[in-house]
Amino acid sequence: MKIEIAIIGCGRIGSVHARAITETLPMVDLVLADVEPSRAIDLANRVGAHAVDTPDIWDRPNLRAVAICSSTTTHVEYICAAAEAGVAVFCEKPVSLDLDEVDRAVRAVTDSDIPFMVGFHKRFDPTHQATKEAVVDGRVGDVHLLRISTRDPQPPPLDYIAVSGGIFLDMTIHDFDMARFLVDSPVQEVFARGAVLIDPQIEQAGDFDTAVVWMRHESGAMTVIDNSRQAAYGHDQRVEVFGSEGMVTSENHHDHAAVILDAEGSHGAVVPHHFLERYESAYRHEWTAFWSYLNDGGPSPVSIEDGRAPVALAVAAGESARTRTPIALEGVR
Amino acid sequence: MKIEIAIIGCGRIGSVHARAITETLPMVDLVLADVEPSRAIDLANRVGAHAVDTPDIWDRPNLRAVAICSSTTTHVEYICAAAEAGVAVFCEKPVSLDLDEVDRAVRAVTDSDIPFMVGFHKRFDPTHQATKEAVVDGRVGDVHLLRISTRDPQPPPLDYIAVSGGIFLDMTIHDFDMARFLVDSPVQEVFARGAVLIDPQIEQAGDFDTAVVWMRHESGAMTVIDNSRQAAYGHDQRVEVFGSEGMVTSENHHDHAAVILDAEGSHGAVVPHHFLERYESAYRHEWTAFWSYLNDGGPSPVSIEDGRAPVALAVAAGESARTRTPIALEGVR
Amino acid sequence: MKIEIAIIGCGRIGSVHARAITETLPMVDLVLADVEPSRAIDLANRVGAHAVDTPDIWDRPNLRAVAICSSTTTHVEYICAAAEAGVAVFCEKPVSLDLDEVDRAVRAVTDSDIPFMVGFHKRFDPTHQATKEAVVDGRVGDVHLLRISTRDPQPPPLDYIAVSGGIFLDMTIHDFDMARFLVDSPVQEVFARGAVLIDPQIEQAGDFDTAVVWMRHESGAMTVIDNSRQAAYGHDQRVEVFGSEGMVTSENHHDHAAVILDAEGSHGAVVPHHFLERYESAYRHEWTAFWSYLNDGGPSPVSIEDGRAPVALAVAAGESARTRTPIALEGVR
Amino acid sequence: MKIEIAIIGCGRIGSVHARAITETLPMVDLVLADVEPSRAIDLANRVGAHAVDTPDIWDRPNLRAVAICSSTTTHVEYICAAAEAGVAVFCEKPVSLDLDEVDRAVRAVTDSDIPFMVGFHKRFDPTHQATKEAVVDGRVGDVHLLRISTRDPQPPPLDYIAVSGGIFLDMTIHDFDMARFLVDSPVQEVFARGAVLIDPQIEQAGDFDTAVVWMRHESGAMTVIDNSRQAAYGHDQRVEVFGSEGMVTSENHHDHAAVILDAEGSHGAVVPHHFLERYESAYRHEWTAFWSYLNDGGPSPVSIEDGRAPVALAVAAGESARTRTPIALEGVR
Repeated sequence: MKIEIAIIGCGRIGSVHARAITETLPMVDLVLADVEPSRAIDLANRVGAHAVDTPDIWDRPNLRAVAICSSTTTHVEYICAAAEAGVAVFCEKPVSLDLDEVDRAVRAVTDSDIPFMVGFHKRFDPTHQATKEAVVDGRVGDVHLLRISTRDPQPPPLDYIAVSGGIFLDMTIHDFDMARFLVDSPVQEVFARGAVLIDPQIEQAGDFDTAVVWMRHESGAMTVIDNSRQAAYGHDQRVEVFGSEGMVTSENHHDHAAVILDAEGSHGAVVPHHFLERYESAYRHEWTAFWSYLNDGGPSPVSIEDGRAPVALAVAAGESARTRTPIALEGVR
Repeated sequence: MKIEIAIIGCGRIGSVHARAITETLPMVDLVLADVEPSRAIDLANRVGAHAVDTPDIWDRPNLRAVAICSSTTTHVEYICAAAEAGVAVFCEKPVSLDLDEVDRAVRAVTDSDIPFMVGFHKRFDPTHQATKEAVVDGRVGDVHLLRISTRDPQPPPLDYIAVSGGIFLDMTIHDFDMARFLVDSPVQEVFARGAVLIDPQIEQAGDFDTAVVWMRHESGAMTVIDNSRQAAYGHDQRVEVFGSEGMVTSENHHDHAAVILDAEGSHGAVVPHHFLERYESAYRHEWTAFWSYLNDGGPSPVSIEDGRAPVALAVAAGESARTRTPIALEGVR
Repeated sequence: MKIEIAIIGCGRIGSVHARAITETLPMVDLVLADVEPSRAIDLANRVGAHAVDTPDIWDRPNLRAVAICSSTTTHVEYICAAAEAGVAVFCEKPVSLDLDEVDRAVRAVTDSDIPFMVGFHKRFDPTHQATKEAVVDGRVGDVHLLRISTRDPQPPPLDYIAVSGGIFLDMTIHDFDMARFLVDSPVQEVFARGAVLIDPQIEQAGDFDTAVVWMRHESGAMTVIDNSRQAAYGHDQRVEVFGSEGMVTSENHHDHAAVILDAEGSHGAVVPHHFLERYESAYRHEWTAFWSYLNDGGPSPVSIEDGRAPVALAVAAGESARTRTPIALEGVR
Repeated sequence: MKIEIAIIGCGRIGSVHARAITETLPMVDLVLADVEPSRAIDLANRVGAHAVDTPDIWDRPNLRAVAICSSTTTHVEYICAAAEAGVAVFCEKPVSLDLDEVDRAVRAVTDSDIPFMVGFHKRFDPTHQATKEAVVDGRVGDVHLLRISTRDPQPPPLDYIAVSGGIFLDMTIHDFDMARFLVDSPVQEVFARGAVLIDPQIEQAGDFDTAVVWMRHESGAMTVIDNSRQAAYGHDQRVEVFGSEGMVTSENHHDHAAVILDAEGSHGAVVPHHFLERYESAYRHEWTAFWSYLNDGGPSPVSIEDGRAPVALAVAAGESARTRTPIALEGVR
């Protein structure tokens, strides 16, 4: 009988993972569960999977791993259940918005020693991968500066913003992860500032729609991140690592490669508006990496510590933005 | 019961279409057939389809269309069978290497009035689509010059070359189609020349590995095509339309968008080496277009005449290269 | 008789202006002076100008303007002399490293009402000009974020660093000017941090070789600047203005536009290493602008207030970097 | 006393060379002559040179070289005069529109053994230079294909076209030179075709405004050139060398490097409209090269044979376009 992977949570991101698994891991059977069973059944029909009730998942003898794609508040609960069952976990980011909860997950994973990976999909994007390789191969020498721009095409719904944990935990968290992915030195200090320049309702919801974060690493390197909830030209996602020997930039992708030259100048395409379009292949590469890790062992591609650190940085950034002062950290690795 | 689409021929290109159909047309049932039944069964297992024997296809009550993906020499036979059965046809390029055979297919399709589309997938690539749109929207004005470069990453096996019909029918045929796609004026004259610069065995096989084609359109516009069987940097595919108001270029895609800048200069990615990688989304868009055509009617996205013309141009190019003189044509539309 | 323009100071930057004037203003006679007279004579021979002693400059009846290209510590003295003589002034940046001295120059210029322009040449670069035009024309909408990267190809000599006023007054000052050029809103807060990552001797000289500056404008827009004294790939100079309707980027120039594509990828040129090469045309455009201002009147292209503000911001940045806290400002316009 | 260089012909191109000489060769005295003496005097005043009557040039004891910038019909006469006087020659392209006349110049130069260089300035452009270097360094391996696009921003005046010798001798001649510059193999066959797509008056003048040239080299490599007299987006000048190991492209320059990204896509600058703007530095590098050649000896950077070959190719192209057949050549090196 085939090995099974179960997805808990069949919303948007659960569907993305369901398709990525069927495309990249034809050797596994996919099992789907959702608090609303009809969603699991619908998705199962579309991708050729099997829908079950969530509690029944843990009893399945061939279950090898669960992909936790449910709402953020339920992540740690399912991580603990999987740890108890001795089942490997792929957990969507963030592990939790609450650092204490994250620490509970860290203990569960550490104590049970289950394979565990956080779904920071950007790490598996070919462009970011090539950027990382350039750094690891020494192409830029010692890292001195890191610049990250992440700007969404439009703000999420206001009711989402209300439960998102704020821009630093919801959006910048990917950039905190990217900084740790690319700069091999703990963060010792964070300064963050936010503004509301797009929609006053976001201010009423207690959040920012525009943010800048500065970080100092133990090595002396500095990271600068900027975020906006609304970029007219699409999902802007650029990273730049500058060092003693040169620079590597992870540039935007574009919708197509046709260019018009006329009397006004040259005209090319916008960047993809949807993160699923921009990161389409990243989700597939993510599952290939998780599968290798499950079977070949070794360190987790994105460990539970990698899940904790960006939350810690996001919490510090939020505090800095509130107090308008830099926040010292005990070296967030 | 669901509508069925059958694929005849489950080799490499048949597999590509099988996946494209399951991804884009979840509302149809996919049926697979191959002269070697085990190939159909294997593919059916991988994509969740149903394998049958080829002759049985025509008896299926819900069959709406066949995708002819078998070897080129069998295309016309299956087109005629589908015409007789009143089943719509999606036919891989080229319709046939023999112009008389193509004409037989033209008659079968015309007489039966079945929906028919040729699989010139490049027309459905987002970059070439944006190029076409720029031309249709008048962004370049009247077309004066068309430049096409198609260069493969490496030559096909010699035994394939022997049955390929030669570089003009096998490789340039896509560029002849692209020229007709982009320049709305019949071709009146063709001059073609070939050379063997990569592998002398290709010369022994009676073919060229490098070729240039010049064409004059009725409007006075001129097209220049160059082909090579071996580009060190990947599958080079560029198109450029120059006109009275400007130019649109369909540039190469790249494996990723990371760029390194060091003391030597800037360094970016190669272009994709495999046409399946370069044209991944084109195959999906192709099936969306075929489905719309089947259901909404209207002119075929790529009609049987669109299937005949590139073969006629390729035959003329071959004759020009042999005789080393320009060949006049009665306006190949 | 022809109108005269005099250059005081015939070192590197004086030579640059001498050539720019002879190329762009053939209708004026050029007069040169230097504390070391032989330097004035040598340059005069090379560009077809006339060398005089500095004190004699003010007596020349046809003198219309002086270009102050002497060492920074002497700028204000010459500005005051020109104000007294009623002669127009073109003054190299910075006006002074000492804010009190700058204020003395402001009073001299304001009281005498002489035409006055600061030599922030980057404002006249065609790429930065096109960037500014895009902002002024509303192409990016309301400005939300400004990113500036200025990185030199190599550090200046240590003895220069010792008298440079520090990285913020010597190098970032251009970026402070660029921020004011592009963002039409006063700066209310500055946070700056420096590091020594290139050469420990720079630390011994009491300076940084790497720096990041964050600024908040009254409008809520935020500016982020990063600087390095050593970029392996040349003189990196990029600016990016992000707003409600889009983004405009002022990208690097490159030594040439040839690109190699091979099995390793694509390979292009480095960026120009020397600021004179990068900004060659900017110096010519600067003099065309100064000449128009002299003859047609209107506001100064770069007024004495434009000379003061970057110094004020640089001083605040230095204080922020020392105290490691954000510095509030009374809206530096 | 200083060495002298004399310019014969003080029109547009003579002025360009006058400025290039004064900028790059401050160690020489410049002497100017023109059939219309006032033009020489005017230019002399502008660049600090000395105007003389043409016949007096040859008597000047310090004359080292003449730059022949007069009308094309007078080139050979002046070359012969210089050969008789033993004076080095820099001759604007083309040497002559008449191949017999060119041969007369070849004999004069060969017999007298004077230093001689043709002003094919494009060879000295940094982008084309980098392209050439890539080829010489083996970066593209054996050359298989060469593509050249040269398109002017607008047609010259009709009265100029009437005496220009036709598009192949007037415009394509630079591309013939570029093909010889980049492909180290004689041309054995030429096929050329022209069209009138821009202005019917050009047809009445007996010329084409759009042209395509195909050439086969002895090595088997093929060159394709396309020309247009009118490109809406500026002076299009691109070259591409494709070979066994890769490709090098000489891309267009752009007016500036600012890029706007908005909801419609990305928008950049046009390419320079004027060849003087595009090739500004090429003229300076040309004189540096000529000066080194004069003083250090060695082969001419652009020899009299380099002057003859493009004329021979242009004549053959004209014949091919008239007869509509390929023309065989005895290997134009």
